This record gives sequence, structure tokens and C-alpha cells, in this order.
Amino acid sequence: MHKNVIVGQSGGPTAVINSSLVGVFKTAKDRGADKVYGMLYGIQGLLEEKYVDLSQHIKTDLDIDLLKRTPSSFLGSCRYKLPEIKDGKEVYEKIFSLLEKLDIEAFFYIGGNDSMDTIKKLSDYAIINGSDIKFMGVPKTIDNDLACTDHTPGFGSAAKYIAATCKEVIRDSLVYGTSSVTVLEIMGRNAGWLTAAAALSKGEDCQGVDMLLLPELPLDPKSFTEKVRLLLQERKSIVIAVSEGTKLADGRYVFELDSHSDAVDAFGHMRLNGTARYLANMLADELGVKTRAIELSTLQRCASHMTSRVDITEAFQVGGAAVKAAFEGETGKVIVLQRVSEDPYICITDSQDVHKIANVEKKVPKEWITNDGTYVSDELIHYIRPLIQAELSPVMVDGLPRHLRLEEF
Amino acid sequence: MHKNVIVGQSGGPTAVINSSLVGVFKTAKDRGADKVYGMLYGIQGLLEEKYVDLSQHIKTDLDIDLLKRTPSSFLGSCRYKLPEIKDGKEVYEKIFSLLEKLDIEAFFYIGGNDSMDTIKKLSDYAIINGSDIKFMGVPKTIDNDLACTDHTPGFGSAAKYIAATCKEVIRDSLVYGTSSVTVLEIMGRNAGWLTAAAALSKGEDCQGVDMLLLPELPLDPKSFTEKVRLLLQERKSIVIAVSEGTKLADGRYVFELDSHSDAVDAFGHMRLNGTARYLANMLADELGVKTRAIELSTLQRCASHMTSRVDITEAFQVGGAAVKAAFEGETGKVIVLQRVSEDPYICITDSQDVHKIANVEKKVPKEWITNDGTYVSDELIHYIRPLIQAELSPVMVDGLPRHLRLEEF
Repeated sequence: MHKNVIVGQSGGPTAVINSSLVGVFKTAKDRGADKVYGMLYGIQGLLEEKYVDLSQHIKTDLDIDLLKRTPSSFLGSCRYKLPEIKDGKEVYEKIFSLLEKLDIEAFFYIGGNDSMDTIKKLSDYAIINGSDIKFMGVPKTIDNDLACTDHTPGFGSAAKYIAATCKEVIRDSLVYGTSSVTVLEIMGRNAGWLTAAAALSKGEDCQGVDMLLLPELPLDPKSFTEKVRLLLQERKSIVIAVSEGTKLADGRYVFELDSHSDAVDAFGHMRLNGTARYLANMLADELGVKTRAIELSTLQRCASHMTSRVDITEAFQVGGAAVKAAFEGETGKVIVLQRVSEDPYICITDSQDVHKIANVEKKVPKEWITNDGTYVSDELIHYIRPLIQAELSPVMVDGLPRHLRLEEF
Repeated sequence: MHKNVIVGQSGGPTAVINSSLVGVFKTAKDRGADKVYGMLYGIQGLLEEKYVDLSQHIKTDLDIDLLKRTPSSFLGSCRYKLPEIKDGKEVYEKIFSLLEKLDIEAFFYIGGNDSMDTIKKLSDYAIINGSDIKFMGVPKTIDNDLACTDHTPGFGSAAKYIAATCKEVIRDSLVYGTSSVTVLEIMGRNAGWLTAAAALSKGEDCQGVDMLLLPELPLDPKSFTEKVRLLLQERKSIVIAVSEGTKLADGRYVFELDSHSDAVDAFGHMRLNGTARYLANMLADELGVKTRAIELSTLQRCASHMTSRVDITEAFQVGGAAVKAAFEGETGKVIVLQRVSEDPYICITDSQDVHKIANVEKKVPKEWITNDGTYVSDELIHYIRPLIQAELSPVMVDGLPRHLRLEEF
């Protein structure tokens, strides 16, 4: 049997998105694929006929191991949304004629809920137009906001980086023995999963963060300030983890109180930041306490020097499972993770209809948010804990982690 | 022989400052010290009679290995400056009577150039007043701005973290294939050593940062903007590392153009930040390009999960050498590192008169800054490279690096 396949990466990168790429590449090769093409810059690049033959770039076992340790999207990415099928005939014809030219039997797209919209539309189009090309979604997002899956590859490593960094910042915050409030800003537009991961900093050797502000519950600045004031009577150093997407009761983002920016990205998402800075300044003004704001920023999604081995392995597995499913005839599906055992932690892969997943956001359940919206439940901590376990040591060359890159980048 | 010694930590912490503490503790014990006291919150805490018996807290070899991997100052820190001897008789009398009460023979202070001022004054006072207590400085600072030493423990690990993070951010910055400028803000009030370390991101697998702005040379916003505009014609993603202390020709800090803050710390240093944000906004306005600002912030000095083994080892050695020197009768000295061979890299310890070091800042030599002030020379890169070599793996417990802490913190 002779098959060509093509794979792309889309949306915001993660520290393990290339493990999924390796999973697709290696499994496709092992299962008899002839060529494995990689589209550059996702579907947007494919429309400009930008693609590579991955065998020309992933040549050795060392390349594979380096790629698993390389942050960001090896093939580049895009935030391009396909038009509705009825509105974009030309776009779809162009894509399908290119896929036919390349003799593609299966198309894999590694991305989040926005990117799964691409798989939904392409698989719908294929069915409508009688194409037998298979379209499979491979989930990734640090945000963990995909529906129908226990969790999302990329989340565990970001959670591990966040928890480890919180531990370090908490140690740092205590040195002077003076009253201070540190506000850590963590990614998460509408879902507070990543911010919740800061709670894992608590353990035998660390008091953990004192408060967590998630976007799932509105923030009342007055009662928040009062809570911090009371906390400062108990202990000197307070560390608060806040989601960049924390909102007020009237629906405005906290950062909007401060910022002039209203830029939106291609998906209509507002570009967020400044939440920690705003809150730190507010607390300094209201309480006369020394404050500092720290944005974990991009490092959360690209810290490949501190990944979870569980996450790396699962990222590989969802890529492999997508190939297996497509080669067995499935299409219009997304590979999901299903937790079949808590202790020991065991997750298996399954597939779900992409229509259930595309454009749907999974938020932190309200019952997992406690203390009037400023902490999370043990259930939530137990849910995340297995996802940050074990490590994949970087390959260190001349003192720094080595990566694999395409000449294009 | 029966000796008690006391050790304190002062100034901003580093990822390896506790290795120096271990070096003092273990060497003092090995050389026959009876009690090794740790002052809490540096000399400021000592004045309030806050101290611990370190043997009660560092009990096992595992404790020692955890302490080497624990960021921030195990004993707490302060930014307290002793009064001049002539102005502060009571303060000095209080300190010396306490040291005599504790039967202290040697006093070790781990800190930067501000902290060495404490050693200078205390050793001067001892000589003037006929005390035979020995006072030794143990150097630490991520800033690498201490005089008379090849480099400073703490710098190598911060440099390694910065270079590794730059590599990851550079990969991340390239994914969309669109024009963008990323401005990374790096610590360094008056010396650009840490920002220079971003140049180490360049290698076989990474194009490295495109520009480096150091505080040693004034920034001309107009010619800087023009340079970025020209660079954007050559490549799409530009990454610029900028020191938080970058100044204009008129002596103002860049961040002052934006910020309302003029708060100063106890040493009269202005609190800096917002340099990257200001420059990113300026470039977006002037060039119409997408920009983002990332502050590496506190993580530079507390990322003990990514330290240099060379740095950890040297931090231990300077602590040990201070004990050896004091026990052999030296006082009023600071342990320094002397590079005796480039290839292979070999550094030995030596001691220098504290008067040559206290309150002196070592800046990046102008001849090591190139390209009209926007890059650094190969000499500078060769100088830093050996300092980031090798690793000390974190002790991972339940998915996170384990630390050692005092109950007080």
C-alpha cells in the first residue's frame, strides 16, 4: 500500500506540539506511508503551496529526539480561519486540488479548538464532494480548554512550568521579611486551567500561592482588596496567581481598566495583558504595600527545558492515534484522551466527532473553585497532578538545550 | 580548637547563593567549627538578634544537596546599609557585643558590592577597636558587576537561564511568518553583563537575538528605530534584548519616558521596569509592526531549575575559600575568582582587600560592545561561555523541583 499524508500545526504553539508532529511522522512511516509532507504555516501556508517533505528534515533518531525537545511549531503556524464552505468555494477547490496533486490520503492538523474548525470544514467538504481524503484533528493547547477530552497535550508541561516557577518566585518573595504582594499573571483567556496549576506549588517544601483568580468567576476589586488586606495581617509575603482573562462583574477585563489596547486577533480574540500590573498597582495604592507584577508571558508555552514526560508521551500518542485512525478509515474526528484509571493514572486515546469539539471551550467547573472564587478544590489539584509527572531532560550542547529547526525558520 | 562562626546573606538573591552558604557551612564544620550560626535577614536581622544554629536545619547530605538546588536566600536577606562608623557607634557596639556573646571567631557575608560595604565597615571597626573577629566577604550577584574578580557566582546561572530562554522565545517568535519585533527586558541596572548573555543564544540551531541594548552606551531612539526598520527588510522576526537600565544620552532611563514611578530603594537605586514595554510600543507606533514586550523579571535570579554546574561549584568554592582564609587569619577580604586558563577553562580562588571591591561597579568594557552599541564582541561571548557549562539536575519530587526551607519562611 502506498500512501502520502500531510500534517500541519496551527494556533499558539506549546512546548510539546512537536512531539505530536513526531507521533504523526513516525507512525505514518511505520504504517507504510510513502511521503509525509509538512505544511508550512498551517493551512494558510498550504494555500500558498508552502510545504516540505518531512523525511528530508527528520533524518535520524537523534533528530526525532531533538524535535521532541524543540519548543514552538517546527512547521510554523497560523491563525487563519477557513471561510464557511458556502462562501469559499475557491479556497476549498484550491486546497483539494493541491491535496490531490500530492496524492494525499490523510490530512492531520495539530491545534486547539479554533484549529479544529479547519478539520471540521475540510472533512465536511470532503463528504459533500465525495473526496475520500481523511481529515483528523490532533489536539494541542496549553489552555486545556478543548471539550470531550480529559485534558489536552501541552497543558501538562505548561502546568509543570507554572507550578515550578511559582515555587521559585515564592521562595524569592520571602527574602526580605517585609510585607509584599506579588501578582503573577498566567495565560488563559476564558479558562482558568493554567492559573489553577499554580496551586500545585503548595507542598511539603512550599506554602504555595495564596490566592488564585480565574476568569470563570468575576472579580470584585473591593472585596479582593479587603481579602488581601486581611491576609497581610497573617503573613508578610502574599503571592497571587491571576489569569490574564480575569473579568469584572460587568464583563470588562481587568486589564481594560488600565490599557489603551483593543487590538483583536484574526479570531476576534482580544489581546490581553496588564492584568497583574493593574492589580499590583491597585493594591499598592489601596493598601500602601510593596507590590510587584510578574507576567509569565510566552515562556509558559515555549519552556521546553521544563516539560512533563507524561505530556510529551501523550502528545506523541495522540499524533500516532490520529494516523492509525485515519489509516483505518476514520475522518472528521479528533483524537481525545480518556482517563481510565486514577491510581495508577492511565489515559488511553479515543476519537470524537470534530463537530463536538471545534469552537467549543471547556472551562473550569464552578464547583472546583472555592473560597469565594480565590482558590481551587483538591479535586482540581488531583486532576492536574498526574499530568506534570516525570521529565524529559533537554539535550544540552555547550551549556544550552539543543533544538531542531527547519532552514526556513 | 573551638570556633563559632556566623554567616549571612544580603542583597538580591541568586539561584546559587545557597551553594555559597553550603560552602561556608560545610567547610567550617570540616575545619573544626563548633557552631555555625546563620543570621536571618542579613545584618538587619542580626541587629534584632535573629539567627539560627545551622546544624539544626542542615542535617543530612540530602539537605545539602537540596540546599544547593534551592533558589533565593535560605536565611533571608536585607538591603540594609550600615551607618558610617563615626555616625553609628551604638549599632556597631550592638553587633560586636552580640558576636562576642555568641563566641564568634569569623563572620561571613554573602552579597554583592553593596553588601561588601558591610564587611568593609565591620572589619574596619574591628581593627580600630582591637577585636580579633575575622570578617570575610563571599561574592554573589547575578549582575556580575563586582570589581577585582573574573566574574561573580550567580552570574553564570542567570546567563544560562537567559540564553536558554532567548532560544525558546526566538523559536516561538518565528511561528507565524509575519513581521514582528519581540523586546526582551533583562536585569542590569548599570552593567550590561546579563543582557550580553542573550548573545549566547546564537548557535548552530538558532539565529540568536538580533540586537542587544546595554546600559553602558546611551540609546538614541531615532537611530535605533531606523536600525530596526532596516533589519525588518532582511528578516521577519526580530528579537531584541534590552537591559532594564538602558539610558538616553541625557542620562534619563528609557523607562522614565513612560513611567510615573520614581521610587528608590534603601541604597538610592531607582526601581526600574517598563523599558521593553516602552520600546515595543514605540516601535509599533513608528514602524506599524506587531511588537511584544517580555520581562524576564525575577525568574532570572531564582530559576534554580536551570543552573550552571560551573556556577554552583564556584559558588560553593568561594564560600569554602572564605572560611579557609578566615581560619588562617585573614580579615577584611573578599574571595574572588581568577581565571588562570582559558582552554581548558580553569578558575581559582584568591582574596582581595574589601576596600577595592565595596561599592565599586564593574561594567562591560566599551571595546566589547560593537555595531554602534547594538551587539557584543566574540571576546565577550567567549568570556561568558565557560560560565554556563554543565548542569545540576533538580531533585524532582511529585513532578516538581524540591527545595529546602527554614520554618521561618
